Amino acid sequence: MTHEIHFQPDNVKIQVEEGANLLAAAANAGVYIHAYCGGDGVCGKCKCKIDSGEAHISGPPADKQGFRLACQTKVNGDITVSIPEVVSKDGRSLKRKPKTTHAISARSMSALVGEWHLDPPVEKRFLKIAPPSIEDNVPDLQRLLRAIRKGCYDCAEPTYDHPELLRELPFTLREKNWEVTVILLKGKRVEEPDRIIAVEPGNTTDRLYGLAVDIGTTTVCGLLIDLNSGKVLADSTSYNEQIRFGEDVISRMIYSQRPGGLKELQELVVRTINKVIEAVCHKVVISPSDISYIMAAGNTVMSQLLLGINPKYLREAPYVPTCSQMPLTRAAALGVYAHPSVRLFLYPSIASYVGGDIVAGVHAAQMHKSPELTLFIDIGTNGEIVVGNQEWMACAACSAGPAFEGGGIKHGMRANTGAIENFHIHPETLDPMLVTIDMSKPCGICGSGLISIVSELLEAKVIDQQGKFDRHLDHPRIRDGHDGYEYVLAWGKDSQTGEDIVITEVDLDNLTRAKGAMYAGYLTLLESVGMTFTDLDRVILAGNFGAYIDLERAITIGLLPDIDRERFYYLGNASLTGCQISLCDNKRFRERTEVSKLMTNMELAENPQFMNHYMAALFLPHTDMELFPTVKAKLAG
Amino acid sequence: MTHEIHFQPDNVKIQVEEGANLLAAAANAGVYIHAYCGGDGVCGKCKCKIDSGEAHISGPPADKQGFRLACQTKVNGDITVSIPEVVSKDGRSLKRKPKTTHAISARSMSALVGEWHLDPPVEKRFLKIAPPSIEDNVPDLQRLLRAIRKGCYDCAEPTYDHPELLRELPFTLREKNWEVTVILLKGKRVEEPDRIIAVEPGNTTDRLYGLAVDIGTTTVCGLLIDLNSGKVLADSTSYNEQIRFGEDVISRMIYSQRPGGLKELQELVVRTINKVIEAVCHKVVISPSDISYIMAAGNTVMSQLLLGINPKYLREAPYVPTCSQMPLTRAAALGVYAHPSVRLFLYPSIASYVGGDIVAGVHAAQMHKSPELTLFIDIGTNGEIVVGNQEWMACAACSAGPAFEGGGIKHGMRANTGAIENFHIHPETLDPMLVTIDMSKPCGICGSGLISIVSELLEAKVIDQQGKFDRHLDHPRIRDGHDGYEYVLAWGKDSQTGEDIVITEVDLDNLTRAKGAMYAGYLTLLESVGMTFTDLDRVILAGNFGAYIDLERAITIGLLPDIDRERFYYLGNASLTGCQISLCDNKRFRERTEVSKLMTNMELAENPQFMNHYMAALFLPHTDMELFPTVKAKLAG
Repeated sequence: MTHEIHFQPDNVKIQVEEGANLLAAAANAGVYIHAYCGGDGVCGKCKCKIDSGEAHISGPPADKQGFRLACQTKVNGDITVSIPEVVSKDGRSLKRKPKTTHAISARSMSALVGEWHLDPPVEKRFLKIAPPSIEDNVPDLQRLLRAIRKGCYDCAEPTYDHPELLRELPFTLREKNWEVTVILLKGKRVEEPDRIIAVEPGNTTDRLYGLAVDIGTTTVCGLLIDLNSGKVLADSTSYNEQIRFGEDVISRMIYSQRPGGLKELQELVVRTINKVIEAVCHKVVISPSDISYIMAAGNTVMSQLLLGINPKYLREAPYVPTCSQMPLTRAAALGVYAHPSVRLFLYPSIASYVGGDIVAGVHAAQMHKSPELTLFIDIGTNGEIVVGNQEWMACAACSAGPAFEGGGIKHGMRANTGAIENFHIHPETLDPMLVTIDMSKPCGICGSGLISIVSELLEAKVIDQQGKFDRHLDHPRIRDGHDGYEYVLAWGKDSQTGEDIVITEVDLDNLTRAKGAMYAGYLTLLESVGMTFTDLDRVILAGNFGAYIDLERAITIGLLPDIDRERFYYLGNASLTGCQISLCDNKRFRERTEVSKLMTNMELAENPQFMNHYMAALFLPHTDMELFPTVKAKLAG
Repeated sequence: MTHEIHFQPDNVKIQVEEGANLLAAAANAGVYIHAYCGGDGVCGKCKCKIDSGEAHISGPPADKQGFRLACQTKVNGDITVSIPEVVSKDGRSLKRKPKTTHAISARSMSALVGEWHLDPPVEKRFLKIAPPSIEDNVPDLQRLLRAIRKGCYDCAEPTYDHPELLRELPFTLREKNWEVTVILLKGKRVEEPDRIIAVEPGNTTDRLYGLAVDIGTTTVCGLLIDLNSGKVLADSTSYNEQIRFGEDVISRMIYSQRPGGLKELQELVVRTINKVIEAVCHKVVISPSDISYIMAAGNTVMSQLLLGINPKYLREAPYVPTCSQMPLTRAAALGVYAHPSVRLFLYPSIASYVGGDIVAGVHAAQMHKSPELTLFIDIGTNGEIVVGNQEWMACAACSAGPAFEGGGIKHGMRANTGAIENFHIHPETLDPMLVTIDMSKPCGICGSGLISIVSELLEAKVIDQQGKFDRHLDHPRIRDGHDGYEYVLAWGKDSQTGEDIVITEVDLDNLTRAKGAMYAGYLTLLESVGMTFTDLDRVILAGNFGAYIDLERAITIGLLPDIDRERFYYLGNASLTGCQISLCDNKRFRERTEVSKLMTNMELAENPQFMNHYMAALFLPHTDMELFPTVKAKLAG
């Protein structure tokens, strides 16, 4: 259920979900409200007045003047809100210039991923088997196979390959008087025979579950899916426990070279997966052994570490992975909580830094079936880029650096409680409006916050296009600090740490390099096939971080190309979606080989063209402003 | 190199191997020599004189009268020997009636097993691989696969399924600068792609070994084979360590039902296999990890125990095995000393008591390719019988009881040192001639000895055709003992134990039941397809015990049918031979499916016809003497 908030005097309207926080809604709408404490309710600045619809809000009562704190107010219906005019430092009351709402054409995910049929790669079949007699005492397994093939004369004999199956079979068959449910894994290719992965006594056909898992460097996300209905029953996300050995894949690879390091990292990611499995199973009260198939995707480093394959040569030129197609592994053999015969499928990798998560995402987005020229972007420490359509795809990894995950940024942090995720600056007073995750006191800046801050500082001309602070501005928040010029986002008294939270010129430089690498990557890939941005039909933003990007601001700083906003799509955790689709629809799953066959990797690090584009992109948004017409207009305006 | 011994005054000639023992040679030739101590040299009875060829013998010098002890004499060339005439108890010197030599047409094994080509299921291929570069940084595995397929455009991409392979691959490839040897396992069927089972640095193509193993209830026999030449490099036999829990499969199955019993039995047979592996590897100074394939066969109980599959239902009616085709297992997963990717193939079973050893034997003997009607017999605790030809085969197990392995016989024992394995009786004095295994003092009777003893007692009319002693004979060795009438084979002073070693009427009864069951089995199977003994083209004696059977005597007691001796073949350890052939020749190996498809099991225990035949066979050799014309003539003569 959505409601409309009408902000005055800016005359901006925004649709929000039931129970939305008023301060966050204002930030999303681009409406500036004084807010220093991130939404914690302590600074008492974010005052507003409910003009109409007072019955539709909840939170602490209004004060004597009729003001409420936006950050403490939840919206349960249509309302109109007035934001008091801000008195600027020179005493004049200023009318803020109107801002448009976010021009994000977040077209529905279904347009991208299409329909899928419920035809999972695992199937349960209930069998009533004729018991043996002296006249018919064929072995248990043959009796079972005979029953499976009954009425199907041209189908291949199912195979099995798990010794444990045979060890249990005599007892399983007899436990419920020769009534059993067999779990069949369909062949990876159409012509392959089915594979028996388990036999259960009695009729258990009503319980058929699969797990989709995205194994990220930072987090592991899982979806428990009822394969009889296709419904997602539960989800869970857990920090990858490997994180204690470093935030990015490079530090993991370094740690893996220590004695015992590889084993430790392997165990830690398995432990994380097990946590996710336990959490989703707990939610719907099933046992992990009820899961019949696991479809997973991760970048190449995560995939190799999960399989216990040393990633040493991923990191050294010429950056060679051990394998592209990952072996179909028994989950239990890796230590994953699962029935011993349950398979864990890992999406294939393309190259050292273009992994299965990207393939799964591209697969989910059906780029391999679309004639539209598409740019697929997953922004993170390693930005991965894919350009192409059903005919061909070029892909590359950009070592963007960790800026988007808070790395290399003085007060950078992951998207956790207290991270500034949204930011506005008052164009006159240059005072900040901070919105933090979980509306608590600010303690740092996450990736999406960083993009907000930089684009706002740029638009307010607090910084120039080189990312340098305007030395002429006389403002208490702009100062020459320990690490050079900086802007104080939150004073120590308003922060969680008691420290001033700042953004420095060094931070701006790091962010510029990160976004420059991404942009140079897009351009290099496009040019390698004789195309440019104007040829693009679609830009797909994947990844958890992608889902939080403010499109307009990302374009403003030059992270995304300045093209028609209608062409942008948010796919969220595309890797997880790919796993989910493959888990539900074996036909879609079988198409995955097309995807990896189409994808050709390009090593940008060694490409002189990339270096040229990169140098040109070390500017906000770019040295060539013709590439960013709307930003050019905005900065000029 | 063979030599001829000419025995006088019997005028019997026999061919012997270099270094043959003179006493054993006489026993094999059917020449009676006094010998109470089994060949230990202590009784001093086995005196003989070398008439010619004195230079061709070795051993202690002759005594003053020119006599030598036959049991201490080895033959290194052609000789003529005189055996002194024996003075009978009544003082008369008797000329023994001449005996023919053994009428065994031990036709060469090669006539049965045919030719086989050196085309093992595993192959080593040396590859020089182009190292990766930035322009060509496809993953290690793909690079390897590309190199394997180089120059072969229509061959399927090899598969691999062992995660350990990928874990080692990056290092293996680089260890000798991209020169590697890949071990490929050919598809079980022609259309199956090859499978990579290991990759080794450098060129190791000169080292390719396979192991053939017969997993018997009593012993485990192994052959180490150089798969580059097909030569047997070493063999080793070890008692199955499971034997501590009983001599036969029934007691193993009973033990397996105890808590932990199955696991213990599994570990014990694996330990035995490992012993054999260590022994053969030690002989040729290679590592067990150099073995690239293991081909094994065992009866159904041994096979299931090795795989850790509970044999519970093998023993209970309707006698259902868990599987016929055994899973192709990784040897290391069972605990066998082997490279982690090495496969252990177990021949399929037909029924609870007709196992892979029989299938391997039938496969070795090529019954599935011959138009000749063949009776294949493996005599042991469970006698297995196969009748048929290339069109069809009927098979059955006879619970013959343990008599042939020394069980249920008062002084019965396995074929170990001191076991009486050959026996003659002086037709007049009724004194014994004992030959024991290893020529040591007698301590018991093994299966082949038992057959000798019974047939000799029968021919000398010491016992009648019902297996009862002639109560009228007045001889110190024939007495009414603790367990009824018995014949003293060795007095306590001549035996290893100090006890008299005897054969009793109870023993005779047990043996009669055992051979009766076998004979009834042959007849029932033949009749089930409308045939009888005269239709048989061939009788193949398999099994270790089969190799030691004295054909003539076995017919005399009715264990084998009284047909043309030329039709009998000795195949020895046919199961091991089957494994050896399959290991060397993949084409022959692939034919094995024909074998198991042709074989149909019959449960004799429930067959009324079998019971009738069994009752009729409880006589020496049979109640119907027309079935045994030569024995009838002999006993009448």
